[in-house]
Amino acid sequence: MKIDIDRERLIGELDALGAISQAEPPVVTRVVFTEADLRGRAYVKQLCREAGLSVREDAVGNTFARWTGTNPNLEPVATGSHIDAIPNAGRFDGTVGVLGALEAIRALAASGYQPGRPVELVIFTSEEPTRFGIGCLGSRLLGGLLDPEAAGARLDRDGVSLDNARWAAGFEGPLASVRLPPGYYSAFVEMHIEQGPILERHNVPLGVVTAIAAPASLTIVIEGEGGHAGAVLMADRHDAFLAAAEIALAVEKSARSSGSNDTVGTVGVCDVFPGAVNSVPSRARIEIDVRDTDEARRDSVLQKIKLACEEVADRRAVKARVELVNADPPAHCDPRIVDTLVHACKTHGLPFERMISRAYHDSLFMSRIAPTAMLFIPCRGGVSHRPDEYASQEAIAQGTLVLAETLAQLSC
Amino acid sequence: MKIDIDRERLIGELDALGAISQAEPPVVTRVVFTEADLRGRAYVKQLCREAGLSVREDAVGNTFARWTGTNPNLEPVATGSHIDAIPNAGRFDGTVGVLGALEAIRALAASGYQPGRPVELVIFTSEEPTRFGIGCLGSRLLGGLLDPEAAGARLDRDGVSLDNARWAAGFEGPLASVRLPPGYYSAFVEMHIEQGPILERHNVPLGVVTAIAAPASLTIVIEGEGGHAGAVLMADRHDAFLAAAEIALAVEKSARSSGSNDTVGTVGVCDVFPGAVNSVPSRARIEIDVRDTDEARRDSVLQKIKLACEEVADRRAVKARVELVNADPPAHCDPRIVDTLVHACKTHGLPFERMISRAYHDSLFMSRIAPTAMLFIPCRGGVSHRPDEYASQEAIAQGTLVLAETLAQLSC
Repeated sequence: MKIDIDRERLIGELDALGAISQAEPPVVTRVVFTEADLRGRAYVKQLCREAGLSVREDAVGNTFARWTGTNPNLEPVATGSHIDAIPNAGRFDGTVGVLGALEAIRALAASGYQPGRPVELVIFTSEEPTRFGIGCLGSRLLGGLLDPEAAGARLDRDGVSLDNARWAAGFEGPLASVRLPPGYYSAFVEMHIEQGPILERHNVPLGVVTAIAAPASLTIVIEGEGGHAGAVLMADRHDAFLAAAEIALAVEKSARSSGSNDTVGTVGVCDVFPGAVNSVPSRARIEIDVRDTDEARRDSVLQKIKLACEEVADRRAVKARVELVNADPPAHCDPRIVDTLVHACKTHGLPFERMISRAYHDSLFMSRIAPTAMLFIPCRGGVSHRPDEYASQEAIAQGTLVLAETLAQLSC
Repeated sequence: MKIDIDRERLIGELDALGAISQAEPPVVTRVVFTEADLRGRAYVKQLCREAGLSVREDAVGNTFARWTGTNPNLEPVATGSHIDAIPNAGRFDGTVGVLGALEAIRALAASGYQPGRPVELVIFTSEEPTRFGIGCLGSRLLGGLLDPEAAGARLDRDGVSLDNARWAAGFEGPLASVRLPPGYYSAFVEMHIEQGPILERHNVPLGVVTAIAAPASLTIVIEGEGGHAGAVLMADRHDAFLAAAEIALAVEKSARSSGSNDTVGTVGVCDVFPGAVNSVPSRARIEIDVRDTDEARRDSVLQKIKLACEEVADRRAVKARVELVNADPPAHCDPRIVDTLVHACKTHGLPFERMISRAYHDSLFMSRIAPTAMLFIPCRGGVSHRPDEYASQEAIAQGTLVLAETLAQLSC
């Protein structure tokens, strides 16, 4: 079987999707259920239909584009990723795994290959946590890892619930209907940019992921006492932002002193209320992301952050409310699919490296209901979540070729 | 002359103005040139016209309501304050000095008093720095203390210039035309809530202000390096928000170690970019407010903050750009007007205390072009810039009576 990847078509589609943004290109901002997200979805669905795939959507907007197999009653092989993007992001995060998978399917079809099992491309809703504070909304719901009622009630910063946002976007029905039973798919394989520097440093074109690090996130709301910045004496203050600043520095210190370079801790969001230069902040809200390849070490960092938060709150006489948004275990990839990926790399003479994913992905949650693995391609400087995120045309084409070979092996 | 303050009318008008808000009452948010600000202005102008005053507005929206004197060629006596309000503010800051002055004029007219000099009520535009980052826009321009061209080009957070905002609000003409020559007014006197706890603590109903503290503000923009919160190792980070957090704590430390309780330093604004939980902050912007009754001590705190900023930027390898938005000298009140205020308190048998204003006011800039003084009334718990800001009806009525008496003495 000769698989021909149409590199130009694929790059053109990645560029076209990248131009669908809430911000001025090349900046990609495509937050879930915004107009840009909906336009991006419409574009990808149209491409899927043109490729002859049948498209369905579930209540949270997860999109399934199916290539029917000769044995449509067998459990499908699934592939896919996400197209939503955080503010000020780039063109490749997620989209490479969606449009690359579509190109893989088209290339297999063009080669004359007929799958036995159906092959299903899944575009997951809100892999990014930007809007509703928790990542992988779609895959968590698919995997039954999120209470549907609580999920629907989650609010964005403007007080709009997930339910209201999805309804406005045209996705109706109960969120409970999103869940798929374990065994629904025979396999899931996701292609993604590495979002780290290792493949580039080692000059290796492909990474076969064997495990995904354990992510966790916290939201901390600090309630202090506001007042006039000119009139409230320093000794009388209970400044919520200063407490948040100390906690942020404690996050950094806890992550740096974990004993491993694999531990990372980030405060990516800090909202200050009322947010006027001449007003002592009465409230601050920070969002914290902690990850590690080792779950126990990650949990001990979370514990250190909570203790620091209590100490700061006591000393400054402010109230701090800590919400553990998520603390997911790591995922171990399925050895059979890992072997299939390895075999596909070898078949096409492409060097590869076995590696761990330090970023989380929808695969983390798909692994709960299906044997799962991931394929990484290098990205320049390890940069992601920035407008200068970049993966070479060659890397994308090579990854797509190996993905196509793998899908063929898994669905034959 | 018997002056009758119509307390009920005045309180009713304060309540009505307080209900004109961008937020749900009792929260007052009335940022300059928003729809709420324009409705507030329309309400006050209507009251002025109903009181028989002639109303004019200048190019930045400063509003002048004049009670013609028997000798209209003499320099007028001016009084007034502001009606704009920071986010999540209360009902009395500024408004007491506007509606109280109007009530004082009405009470004097009702008593049969005829002023020799015109009496002019001034409602200053944007005393609060919320939108354009600098306080007392209107009075700074009146006093010739702000370059009109630079002022017109100032941008709000959405990138709207002051010029575009004032034009959209209907205030046209060159900003250079706002300036009034020194000597234009024979006197300026502003009534205001204290925004501090002293009058309440001493159980004294009135404060005669002899000086206004020296305010300064800085904006610091930190440029670090963004990236994926899962993938960028701690040792490779240049997190802009963590640098901002350290600088904020340095502001607190510098203010607390100045050697005087009178020094205050506040970081009331912190914007983090891109502001996603899973993204290392690439940029942060903080706004800093520093005040002191002593200008040299304040300047040494500013200097300490700048040094701390440099040290943090060097250590974290981020760039920090410090803009000194304003650094105003303190104002000393005019002894003749102070004496007139003291005399008015005594005339009406009301205890008073001479005091310093730790908050700044339009009076700080009016003092550059007119002999100026201020009258304070107590506010509960010293609280201001919060929805629970409160001044008693009795305090407001007593202040208004003394203001009326003072205006009569100054304009006869």
